[in-house]
Amino acid sequence: MGRTIGIISDFGNTDNYVGIMKGVIRNISPFADIIDINNNIENCNIISGAYSLESSYRYFPNNTIFLCIVDPGVGSSRRAIAIETESHYFVAPDNGLLTAIIKNEKIKRAANLSNSSYHLINKSATFHGRDIFAPVAAHISMRIELDELGERVDVNSLILLPDYVALKDDYSIEGSVVHKDKFGNIISNIPTDWIDKKKRSKDLSCRI
Amino acid sequence: MGRTIGIISDFGNTDNYVGIMKGVIRNISPFADIIDINNNIENCNIISGAYSLESSYRYFPNNTIFLCIVDPGVGSSRRAIAIETESHYFVAPDNGLLTAIIKNEKIKRAANLSNSSYHLINKSATFHGRDIFAPVAAHISMRIELDELGERVDVNSLILLPDYVALKDDYSIEGSVVHKDKFGNIISNIPTDWIDKKKRSKDLSCRI
Amino acid sequence: MGRTIGIISDFGNTDNYVGIMKGVIRNISPFADIIDINNNIENCNIISGAYSLESSYRYFPNNTIFLCIVDPGVGSSRRAIAIETESHYFVAPDNGLLTAIIKNEKIKRAANLSNSSYHLINKSATFHGRDIFAPVAAHISMRIELDELGERVDVNSLILLPDYVALKDDYSIEGSVVHKDKFGNIISNIPTDWIDKKKRSKDLSCRI
Repeated sequence: MGRTIGIISDFGNTDNYVGIMKGVIRNISPFADIIDINNNIENCNIISGAYSLESSYRYFPNNTIFLCIVDPGVGSSRRAIAIETESHYFVAPDNGLLTAIIKNEKIKRAANLSNSSYHLINKSATFHGRDIFAPVAAHISMRIELDELGERVDVNSLILLPDYVALKDDYSIEGSVVHKDKFGNIISNIPTDWIDKKKRSKDLSCRI
Repeated sequence: MGRTIGIISDFGNTDNYVGIMKGVIRNISPFADIIDINNNIENCNIISGAYSLESSYRYFPNNTIFLCIVDPGVGSSRRAIAIETESHYFVAPDNGLLTAIIKNEKIKRAANLSNSSYHLINKSATFHGRDIFAPVAAHISMRIELDELGERVDVNSLILLPDYVALKDDYSIEGSVVHKDKFGNIISNIPTDWIDKKKRSKDLSCRI
Repeated sequence: MGRTIGIISDFGNTDNYVGIMKGVIRNISPFADIIDINNNIENCNIISGAYSLESSYRYFPNNTIFLCIVDPGVGSSRRAIAIETESHYFVAPDNGLLTAIIKNEKIKRAANLSNSSYHLINKSATFHGRDIFAPVAAHISMRIELDELGERVDVNSLILLPDYVALKDDYSIEGSVVHKDKFGNIISNIPTDWIDKKKRSKDLSCRI
């Protein structure tokens, strides 16, 4: 089996968008190990997609390629990027989806995916998942280097989500809800160790 | 990894029907690469299943086997068929689901799946996906030839969907909606090049 | 391809819980063949999970490992177990989810999953799927023996669902609904051969 490609998207399970991306990947990369992480991110909800990636990527093998597509700006001038860290690869629109990676990981290289030799030939304006991101992820699984995929990008120029991290002072904590799960758990961006454990209800993280 | 088997069905994600078919496939074909294309076709909606196949199959590698099951006539006398084109294989009930393939592709052979040696032993009246279609797709992935699976079928006898293609004259275009996607896009069967681009709203294909 | 790991859970398709388990599995078992059987069991509905397993496991290859997680007691003192039959392996909480296996199959060995060398290092109180069950299933796929995973458990001490089997006397049959499928079929635990076929409506098992 080849390198793992983990998919996070808002493409859902009721269309064939994810299936088509897998066909595109398999055409380029005969042995890639394709894993769905979550294709049911709320439509265009970048914060929820960023949370899904942040909470999952550490559990995947080294050299996994994360194919992340929540892309309300598809067809606009937003960049398509790939990032290589010391352990993983990330392919995504440059819209904040990779905020946690950019903040937490040591970035080795970032590339603007401008080399169309690694895209599908007839690109649409609306389905860059199929036309750009999936083929690029497949090529990375085949050991194509980021420098082949496009010019290097200054890490400081990458888009970060402004409200992705909670705020804290001596008197208060201000955070956001980043996800509501199937069991009804509400997940916020407030780190567990900011909360006084003595004051926490034992049931705080229980299923409801 | 062996040949790819791509699945399109109305079996959903809330039952174990697709999982059981994968078990059946794996029992016959130890290395097949199984990919879900779309298992959430609306119950018994052959037009939507046909559209899902038409819009996805070209993205898959040569020799992919498409296992297509939207089968309101299961248990009746409708035929179960396999079609071999110059690039792919298709396994389905003979009910119009393969209309686009029959119209667009050069058919090398079509077979009526009458040879029960390639089916599960105890066949039910209601789950031919498990009992006939999945085992046949798995056997094709193992290089069993269509002539082994049953007698040849005249391509002209295969069922086509009557309303699958849009109509056009000098004054009007008449088409149908074939799918509504997760983003609210309405997809019709009217080919893009029938529409005057100057008159198209720029936002026509945008997510809503 | 390595051994098959089949997953049944109530983790759904809208969170990344199943995806994370697959990452954990892939980290331990580079070649395991991971198949989703049904991840949309109703939250905490052990009877429905037990039915999903009972109706699917016979279709899978020998040595398949079934990773079954419907676990309302997670974080309590309920045991985590693995069972080896003559053909398959089953990893689950000891809460009745494996009732059909314990009743129908010849059990070779059962183990209490107490050896934390085969778990993730930092265990949570709420996600044993990720921290215990997935790593154990992955280790079994890598040929780790049950005796390594923890002390043997007396099969008679394993939890069974009290109402899982229907009752019958000369005058009446008493059963329960164990599942309602996407097509509207109601599936009960009453065996087909208990029902007088002459009295059965021909439409009894039709899609509605």
